[in-house]
Amino acid sequence: MKLSEGVEWSCHACAVLAGLPQGGALSASALAAFHELPPAYMAKHLQALSRAGIVHSVRGVGGGYRLARPANEISLWDVRQAIEGTTPDFRCREIRRNGPCSEFGAPSRPCNVAAAFWAAERSYQQSLESVSIAHIALGVARLYGAKGAARFQAWVQEGS
Amino acid sequence: MKLSEGVEWSCHACAVLAGLPQGGALSASALAAFHELPPAYMAKHLQALSRAGIVHSVRGVGGGYRLARPANEISLWDVRQAIEGTTPDFRCREIRRNGPCSEFGAPSRPCNVAAAFWAAERSYQQSLESVSIAHIALGVARLYGAKGAARFQAWVQEGS
Repeated sequence: MKLSEGVEWSCHACAVLAGLPQGGALSASALAAFHELPPAYMAKHLQALSRAGIVHSVRGVGGGYRLARPANEISLWDVRQAIEGTTPDFRCREIRRNGPCSEFGAPSRPCNVAAAFWAAERSYQQSLESVSIAHIALGVARLYGAKGAARFQAWVQEGS
Repeated sequence: MKLSEGVEWSCHACAVLAGLPQGGALSASALAAFHELPPAYMAKHLQALSRAGIVHSVRGVGGGYRLARPANEISLWDVRQAIEGTTPDFRCREIRRNGPCSEFGAPSRPCNVAAAFWAAERSYQQSLESVSIAHIALGVARLYGAKGAARFQAWVQEGS
């Protein structure tokens, strides 16, 4: 099982948007350029983030994308869901209802295979819910340091 | 992201094998028939379980598959890994090393996006490691009840 690379791209793109000055926005092509990613795919993922209410599209001169709510109110789980969808990874097909023993048992009781996988998914979800885009952006800022931050602000002001 | 249906099939197949009498074995086609699954796909998944050391193939009359170790020593995580592989779901492509700010920062420090996703995967793994095939088989036995258990043993003795 492989998570879409769009999840990684989107987390980093949101962290970039979190670093913009008040009222700033970046186009899909600028967000793609910042990490040297294919613009068309980046645009597709930004549309998914927009549909999920994570980013907001601003029209006109200086338009583009900005975060739709504060970076500390967007979790990595929100981003993952926007890109990967909201259905559980484990789909129970109730195969226990088939075959020679299918007439026995109480079908209303949930399958314990499905229950175990969904419990594991809840643990995974809770872990990602505890990490915000603000936390990611802070980590990136620390990584880049003061010189990197200055270069980033210059890049934004140069029109990206 | 969708987990292969082979994970569900394999968990249930292992639970069936856990219910066999001492020394018993079931063919791939019998294991497929028990849940009305396509025999060729079931056989493929059983080969993966065999490569992972979860089931053991027995040749000759009365041959087939049996569990390679006690059911309480096989976790749902073991089964999931056998079918889905052992690489993490999240693949970090280090896109933070690209673009206008790539010259800044300490590349040796792990990316905090990747760190967060891998931490979530560890939570998921720990959750599945805590559930054994013995637990699943016990749940199935409880679901079927005494009449279902008798039907199962009869089905096995009839040559499946």
